[in-house]
Amino acid sequence: MTAVGIDAIEIHTGKLKLDLAETLAPVKDKDPEYYTKGIGLAASSFPDTYEDIVTMGANAAYKLMDRRGLTPQDIGRIDVATESAFDNSKPVSTYVAGCLEQVFDGDFHHANKGERKFACISGTQSLDDAYNWIRAGRNRGRSALVIATDTALYARGDAGEATQGAGAVAMLISEEPDLVELSTEQGYGSADETDFLKPNQQFPSVDGKRSVQVYLARMREALEDFESVAGDTHPDDFVLGPFHTPFPGMVRKAALLAYRHMIRDTEIEEQLADEVGRQPRPEAFDSDEDYVEAMGDYTDLLKGTDTYQEWYDSTIAPTLEISREVGNWYTGSVHIARASGLKAMLEAGEDITGDRLLVGSYGSGAQAEIHAETVREGWKEEIAALTIDEQIAARRDISFEEYERVHDVHNHDKQADDVEEFTSPEDEFVFDGWGRMGERKYRYVE
Amino acid sequence: MTAVGIDAIEIHTGKLKLDLAETLAPVKDKDPEYYTKGIGLAASSFPDTYEDIVTMGANAAYKLMDRRGLTPQDIGRIDVATESAFDNSKPVSTYVAGCLEQVFDGDFHHANKGERKFACISGTQSLDDAYNWIRAGRNRGRSALVIATDTALYARGDAGEATQGAGAVAMLISEEPDLVELSTEQGYGSADETDFLKPNQQFPSVDGKRSVQVYLARMREALEDFESVAGDTHPDDFVLGPFHTPFPGMVRKAALLAYRHMIRDTEIEEQLADEVGRQPRPEAFDSDEDYVEAMGDYTDLLKGTDTYQEWYDSTIAPTLEISREVGNWYTGSVHIARASGLKAMLEAGEDITGDRLLVGSYGSGAQAEIHAETVREGWKEEIAALTIDEQIAARRDISFEEYERVHDVHNHDKQADDVEEFTSPEDEFVFDGWGRMGERKYRYVE
Repeated sequence: MTAVGIDAIEIHTGKLKLDLAETLAPVKDKDPEYYTKGIGLAASSFPDTYEDIVTMGANAAYKLMDRRGLTPQDIGRIDVATESAFDNSKPVSTYVAGCLEQVFDGDFHHANKGERKFACISGTQSLDDAYNWIRAGRNRGRSALVIATDTALYARGDAGEATQGAGAVAMLISEEPDLVELSTEQGYGSADETDFLKPNQQFPSVDGKRSVQVYLARMREALEDFESVAGDTHPDDFVLGPFHTPFPGMVRKAALLAYRHMIRDTEIEEQLADEVGRQPRPEAFDSDEDYVEAMGDYTDLLKGTDTYQEWYDSTIAPTLEISREVGNWYTGSVHIARASGLKAMLEAGEDITGDRLLVGSYGSGAQAEIHAETVREGWKEEIAALTIDEQIAARRDISFEEYERVHDVHNHDKQADDVEEFTSPEDEFVFDGWGRMGERKYRYVE
Repeated sequence: MTAVGIDAIEIHTGKLKLDLAETLAPVKDKDPEYYTKGIGLAASSFPDTYEDIVTMGANAAYKLMDRRGLTPQDIGRIDVATESAFDNSKPVSTYVAGCLEQVFDGDFHHANKGERKFACISGTQSLDDAYNWIRAGRNRGRSALVIATDTALYARGDAGEATQGAGAVAMLISEEPDLVELSTEQGYGSADETDFLKPNQQFPSVDGKRSVQVYLARMREALEDFESVAGDTHPDDFVLGPFHTPFPGMVRKAALLAYRHMIRDTEIEEQLADEVGRQPRPEAFDSDEDYVEAMGDYTDLLKGTDTYQEWYDSTIAPTLEISREVGNWYTGSVHIARASGLKAMLEAGEDITGDRLLVGSYGSGAQAEIHAETVREGWKEEIAALTIDEQIAARRDISFEEYERVHDVHNHDKQADDVEEFTSPEDEFVFDGWGRMGERKYRYVE
């Protein structure tokens, strides 16, 4: 069977930077380590006044198509995943196609364009749509362009201000892909939850404590569902574990539970038994409470073992490096986690062709999805082409007063059109004002 | 290859009725025939105070699952298509699943839930996602539940008030389906257009004239793209032509152009030559203008021929019967057109098993999709089970003053919680107020 998967990837960050330790902590009267150690974030990327989900998505897609020498005729569908849409009917993908048609010869008139919404998981759902479309034999030799783009902003003063971010990930899904191969195996954990939502509002209502519980519960369910189709998982099966990263501290919790689940009834549990005991089994306890407490104690001990820490440092920590510098990108988050992990492997000189990744996506509301990917031979060249380090370094570091102004620009309920841009656009798409029907307009700046 | 397609369908209409000739025409000071003949609509369905996109979608899905004896374990994905969402992050499908879990044993925790947005075309896009998912071999023997649900409301005083509507269509997508089989062949016509949009607003901004032009241009492009993969189309190939029906008058225009396109270079063009001449060819004209004018003249004559009228009456008119009574249902529209056509065939005693439908979907913004479907052996039983006639007849006919009040209830910017319901819910899901995070709550009323 022909391999199908991610052929190419490009990441585009918002061009402003809010430094959490230097800029946010003093204003919020917090210890800087609350952000850098607790939450695990150094900074958030922010969109400049002329940036939005369309410009970031189109810029990522343009870079990808340009680098790979693609034309519009090579693309059979453009799917945008976002939870930052500014229109309740017209999809972002039409705007992105309109931008790309300004710079390419030809058009995307025979490409299916779409938009998916499900909090942060719709980027992965769009990847699946593209995979299924090719597997169904409908692609006519063409590839799909999947774009996950978000401006993850919270209301001013909300606790979520610490985990904002803005950026886009463009992915090319093709037959015989260069980066990773997907498979038909996947697991879901999904329930009607009220952890994070945006009822008729731009900025989210969040129940922070519930959100953490739901993330963990749905991920566990998804992993069990995945194992029901792909067989038991084992830590040695996966070289990297890119998970949805609202903030690295969340992934630290999830990784520990995933590891505990994977080592149960394996030689690893056995080898660790002298040090931390065996995992409690529910049948050995009189009450659920006692069992949960015992499991909590075991988990704390497991976390302190060298065996766990080595696994975490090699498999999970590398996936958090980009996120740490840019914050939460919602739909793009798990896809920068994958890129981050692969980039760390490349920089460490590891050859991981043929190795597997365990990818955990999540969206509030709520749903988790777990699947495995196999690294393809072209991965090094593809990852070496990323310019995300340069983009991160080039961001304009804004003051808190500047942050307040730019936040207003992106607030749909405010009129803040007179705020001057902080950076100068060059070789990129920019927002160019409103049309007579309330549509947003865009142009390419050389 | 195993057949994949629509296995079952249920239609649920909003429970109020706005009569256009009797109720709207006097207030708007219009000739009733402006609505009934020109636009082609007799009435709009409207949601009662306790109805919304979730209740209508869940009620349609419940009826479908109940009638077919399905349990949650039989469903591997729930996809909702809508352009009337009330949350920018949490998808409607999670609410629908939450409703269904109130009445079924078991849960949908391992079903992939999604939401798609692209004006009126996302219902068909969701159908395609489900088809591709099964074709890709990811369904584990399960079916997909696709729900197209919308409250198609316009701002008070907008010209669009004549083409409102509210309802949901639930479709079950399975292997070896009872109703129609889909195929991999499809054609797209898609461009970045500003014909109809909802920029940060609930009700649409519409350029009515442009919208008609774009509908026709994109449909033509989609038909040509379809022919590039499926071969030339001919009127005799299709027993019905269900198109997206914003109002029947729009489909009258589209059908004529489609017919003209299909008969070119066929024996039908030849047979009609004595009566109306042959179709103008661009190479015979000095200017585009002259060619367009000549084609317009030919089209007018073609429309008046018995040959065309017979085709229209048998292939297109039957698809408009439900729409005429309920108005525009946005994402559900093309799917009630299909149901309407099949229902008319059943009532006429036609046996169309194995015959084909030419299905034309459209979403503003803009994109058209054309594909063919083959009628399956179980179609009669499936269509006979529809209760839409009874539902239409049972609607409460509201006065204009009542219409004003219920429109306010559904306006997100108004507080109109104190409006009393016009009908009494029975054996259905109803809206049950707001939760502390702004989430909407639902319960089943026996």
